[in-house]
Amino acid sequence: MAVVVRRTPRCDLELINEISSFGVATIHEAQGRRGLMASRLRPIYRPIHVAGNALTCEVAPGDNWSIHVAVEQAQPGDVLVVTPTSPCDDGYFGELLATSLVAHGVRGLIIDAGVRDVAALTAMSFPVWSKTICAQGTVKETPGNVQGPIVCAGAAVRPGDVVVADDDGVVVVRLEDMVAVLESCRQRERNEDEKRSRLAAGELGLDIYNMRDRLTERGLRYSDESPE
Amino acid sequence: MAVVVRRTPRCDLELINEISSFGVATIHEAQGRRGLMASRLRPIYRPIHVAGNALTCEVAPGDNWSIHVAVEQAQPGDVLVVTPTSPCDDGYFGELLATSLVAHGVRGLIIDAGVRDVAALTAMSFPVWSKTICAQGTVKETPGNVQGPIVCAGAAVRPGDVVVADDDGVVVVRLEDMVAVLESCRQRERNEDEKRSRLAAGELGLDIYNMRDRLTERGLRYSDESPE
Amino acid sequence: MAVVVRRTPRCDLELINEISSFGVATIHEAQGRRGLMASRLRPIYRPIHVAGNALTCEVAPGDNWSIHVAVEQAQPGDVLVVTPTSPCDDGYFGELLATSLVAHGVRGLIIDAGVRDVAALTAMSFPVWSKTICAQGTVKETPGNVQGPIVCAGAAVRPGDVVVADDDGVVVVRLEDMVAVLESCRQRERNEDEKRSRLAAGELGLDIYNMRDRLTERGLRYSDESPE
Amino acid sequence: MAVVVRRTPRCDLELINEISSFGVATIHEAQGRRGLMASRLRPIYRPIHVAGNALTCEVAPGDNWSIHVAVEQAQPGDVLVVTPTSPCDDGYFGELLATSLVAHGVRGLIIDAGVRDVAALTAMSFPVWSKTICAQGTVKETPGNVQGPIVCAGAAVRPGDVVVADDDGVVVVRLEDMVAVLESCRQRERNEDEKRSRLAAGELGLDIYNMRDRLTERGLRYSDESPE
Amino acid sequence: MAVVVRRTPRCDLELINEISSFGVATIHEAQGRRGLMASRLRPIYRPIHVAGNALTCEVAPGDNWSIHVAVEQAQPGDVLVVTPTSPCDDGYFGELLATSLVAHGVRGLIIDAGVRDVAALTAMSFPVWSKTICAQGTVKETPGNVQGPIVCAGAAVRPGDVVVADDDGVVVVRLEDMVAVLESCRQRERNEDEKRSRLAAGELGLDIYNMRDRLTERGLRYSDESPE
Amino acid sequence: MAVVVRRTPRCDLELINEISSFGVATIHEAQGRRGLMASRLRPIYRPIHVAGNALTCEVAPGDNWSIHVAVEQAQPGDVLVVTPTSPCDDGYFGELLATSLVAHGVRGLIIDAGVRDVAALTAMSFPVWSKTICAQGTVKETPGNVQGPIVCAGAAVRPGDVVVADDDGVVVVRLEDMVAVLESCRQRERNEDEKRSRLAAGELGLDIYNMRDRLTERGLRYSDESPE
Repeated sequence: MAVVVRRTPRCDLELINEISSFGVATIHEAQGRRGLMASRLRPIYRPIHVAGNALTCEVAPGDNWSIHVAVEQAQPGDVLVVTPTSPCDDGYFGELLATSLVAHGVRGLIIDAGVRDVAALTAMSFPVWSKTICAQGTVKETPGNVQGPIVCAGAAVRPGDVVVADDDGVVVVRLEDMVAVLESCRQRERNEDEKRSRLAAGELGLDIYNMRDRLTERGLRYSDESPE
Repeated sequence: MAVVVRRTPRCDLELINEISSFGVATIHEAQGRRGLMASRLRPIYRPIHVAGNALTCEVAPGDNWSIHVAVEQAQPGDVLVVTPTSPCDDGYFGELLATSLVAHGVRGLIIDAGVRDVAALTAMSFPVWSKTICAQGTVKETPGNVQGPIVCAGAAVRPGDVVVADDDGVVVVRLEDMVAVLESCRQRERNEDEKRSRLAAGELGLDIYNMRDRLTERGLRYSDESPE
Repeated sequence: MAVVVRRTPRCDLELINEISSFGVATIHEAQGRRGLMASRLRPIYRPIHVAGNALTCEVAPGDNWSIHVAVEQAQPGDVLVVTPTSPCDDGYFGELLATSLVAHGVRGLIIDAGVRDVAALTAMSFPVWSKTICAQGTVKETPGNVQGPIVCAGAAVRPGDVVVADDDGVVVVRLEDMVAVLESCRQRERNEDEKRSRLAAGELGLDIYNMRDRLTERGLRYSDESPE
Repeated sequence: MAVVVRRTPRCDLELINEISSFGVATIHEAQGRRGLMASRLRPIYRPIHVAGNALTCEVAPGDNWSIHVAVEQAQPGDVLVVTPTSPCDDGYFGELLATSLVAHGVRGLIIDAGVRDVAALTAMSFPVWSKTICAQGTVKETPGNVQGPIVCAGAAVRPGDVVVADDDGVVVVRLEDMVAVLESCRQRERNEDEKRSRLAAGELGLDIYNMRDRLTERGLRYSDESPE
Repeated sequence: MAVVVRRTPRCDLELINEISSFGVATIHEAQGRRGLMASRLRPIYRPIHVAGNALTCEVAPGDNWSIHVAVEQAQPGDVLVVTPTSPCDDGYFGELLATSLVAHGVRGLIIDAGVRDVAALTAMSFPVWSKTICAQGTVKETPGNVQGPIVCAGAAVRPGDVVVADDDGVVVVRLEDMVAVLESCRQRERNEDEKRSRLAAGELGLDIYNMRDRLTERGLRYSDESPE
Repeated sequence: MAVVVRRTPRCDLELINEISSFGVATIHEAQGRRGLMASRLRPIYRPIHVAGNALTCEVAPGDNWSIHVAVEQAQPGDVLVVTPTSPCDDGYFGELLATSLVAHGVRGLIIDAGVRDVAALTAMSFPVWSKTICAQGTVKETPGNVQGPIVCAGAAVRPGDVVVADDDGVVVVRLEDMVAVLESCRQRERNEDEKRSRLAAGELGLDIYNMRDRLTERGLRYSDESPE
């Protein structure tokens, strides 16, 4: 009863490429702090960066069959997002699957489970975020859904949502929010550039952000003696 | 009542050097997916690789005395495999012990506990897989067994079994299985070379592995509408 | 009811710079194995090293306001030490705060929580030890104590205690112990240099440290047959 | 920018009371193994059981303000489902909030964070599933969304979805699936009753489920000697 | 170089017995949310409660020798607080030591490590909070400090500080703060009694605590449509 | 290529019933502190106790097929010991399988994975030690070895080894060691009975075990002033 959904929306790659110039932390702030995957997902090398359309895939524990099914649904600019139906650390993915994904234009992999062949994946510069690195292989007995809505590492992902990942983690931007989030990112970055210059010159955040009165109001006081 | 067993078998270094050209994931598959240590053992630097005869050593929690005892039993081509008798994260091993092991031809360390001096170990290119990195030192009060059968990170290891480790983890090949496993590795690699070319050319795993009928039989279906 | 203590002691930077030539493992041994932070604190890049006066800061969960307060108390040679009042993995600290700290001469950050912008922090060579890397931002609603005594990752830290951190972890040296610990470090290092040469020449630790009699006394015996 | 959605659907309590006679494991199977929350959510006492309409609530780390907001939206038969916007172990909920929920007909609490006053909650027989038990209190500074769609412990939950929880864990049934899932539960239970009698009489699952041929086909063989 | 400090202060048992009528959550709030041990310390049975003077004890990993040393320093009304010098899950403590402590008037045990014989400890109603339950025994080779200042499960404890523990966890009250904390506990409890009655009658926290205006100010808004 | 070994040794049930009067901690000490499973295995209810011949079973992740195969190999007095070939938290075992095991005289279950139906298992008084409680079901696609040698939760187990488990954990006694271990248990218990009486009378362990001189020799000293 696994289903592959073939006609799914995708975000325009121009928008994706533009958002890819922003970091995950910036995008997460820009969209009101939503859509972040759990920090247990770590990149296999650093520095690292990817952005693309989510190609979603559910796998059974210890079973990577549906990843093969997902490859056929791939389009250039996709990022494969894989979630197990129950927690598993096995190495679902290695060099051969990466070779296949690259041949179909897939830009990277997000997986809430394990991967293997990480020396080869690193040598290929194929970006991967995973929960574990583990040599344990998988079987091909139980297919899972492909291109359905999933929850991956605590974040809801639908096919066509945009996934951006870097050294800090992985964030999902909903397709319908892309234009607004991009605009918000641009504003945040302009704002940060100005702040960065003032902070580098030694100005205090306390003054730049006018925090002193509010801190006093919230009960902060200064003392010349230790409270202990 | 700790025992050091002096006459233990060892595998021929030519066989070991040959198996060392294969990755841990390949070897693990080739021997029917057995002998893999838990993925909590991580290398201190990457890329990394080692293969050798297991020199086994049990240590008490917070006590590294038997590692000194083990050094005397070392022979060129050994890999030291250390397991604590109860879980411990202390730094059992550092630069001085590595210097001593190198002087006796030991190729690397597998330890289900902590190590320290990792900057120096990395500078020496001494390969180490450990559960933790921790500066906490150990005492020398309770000796443990050396060259007895142990369980390390979930895998049974006997002296003279062969240990191979790389970026993906650590696998144990039983001495008596070495010739068969090597042959199986060679076959797998030839098979993978062919698959890699076809996948790189864009052929689908679904077709290369003839998966389509079996997927249908197992209930996979395609839809042009989302199941939600 | 948060308090900022303004007049706190600091250790002379000459002493700090001298202790910074020793590794964390050496310092920890030299002061009787005390003051080590938990090994969950990991550096964001390697190799890495820092030593400085502890500038202490408590933060509420998901709230980094008091880090801004701490910056104003910074003096050149400080290392910022941040502990949350309950466990939290959020990214409390990123590039902008690092820019501000650098402008005030702060040498690094120790935080028992998460950080973000690690690609930028690495590019700046700003040394950070943290529990997690996480893009999740924080709010500014609840100030915490600055320059009070804290417990960070299991170690007690007072303002002006000296913090040294490297690839192996983080250790705290009490201000009043600095001179004695430094002298003990120097002795240990001389001792280790001699040991290293002898071990490199193939001498056994069993002989260098005269362990054989005591091992026998503790029940170690040698056998030519396996105990199993 | 937190939002409270006031007009949300709810499932008929008769259906909920009927599904509450089935265990979580049965319901999870009956709906195709979806909707299970992560096993880190544990009940504060056992045996324990609840079923109700999900009243969803997001909380900031260390901040339980929106739970107070949620109480006003409660209707008899609801189960409060709380998820933090980033991982937190604090004790968000205790006896006073339970008293308030009981007064409004709420049947229990599911929270992917900590609770406190568990002796009192147990004495009240107020059913709670939480990630931790922790005395650490929370602040009231940052409101979160109430009755929006959330992800809690890895499962997507919308207001009006039905939550069932027992000693085995917590499962979410989508409102639109309730009738079909109930029917499937009834069938499974009839089927299990028959199986239970045959198994109790000593019949083997191998025979009841006709597994022998398929096991042989999958490579199972019997031996009178150990493979080692 | 382990030290046993013999003349340490103790709090009057009358004060301790009075504070023991309050829960850990109340005491923690009453003293400004400080002094809570990490929630990994769990009671071996429930319901459970203890309060007493801290009798502090450091143990080496896998070595419980100093617990025997500590018994001699015990006075009626003490609670033994044990912390390992590096993390360890071994069973440091069982029925025999509990028998000895009871004979000297010790009221319970807080240990950031493992215990064993929990069936017997439960039958004796000897209250214990530990990190693990583990049958693994310990050696007696390395003494540790007794009645010195320690950090246990993230909280600083000095001999004579008061330790209170219940189903929710463990809190430390500094000796010098006892009178003030007691008074604050009494006030909190009176306040809670009134709140409890009003909440039980169905009044909303939003109204009792006057939260509505401040919630609006912080951006909370109500909607009759889902934000998604 | 899974194998079921049919002719395996078993220990006499009289010996097993006799050892079952001793606790796991005592047995573990009596056999030189070996054979203990990791403390992550916890009983589903307490107090709890079982002893029996190990009936060993390997399962694939998320696949409980070989448990059905194992039932056919069961003999009265067996304890089923199940280990997954890679870590998995799924609920491999519930009421139906327990019913089947009871019908064949199996006394309990040790599993380094999850179980479900724990309310029913508790009501049946069927003793279970597991890593997790989880409602997630499993498939039947990949058989595993039955009655081969395994590693379960860090301990090596062969069919016919004796497994004893109680509130403190799980220990394995090798078949060939049973007589000696039993004798050693009896001696330990006699010894403990005497110690218990003396400790209950207030005598100190320091005196009973003659520890004072050795403590002084190891550097313990007494002080009337705090070392800080």
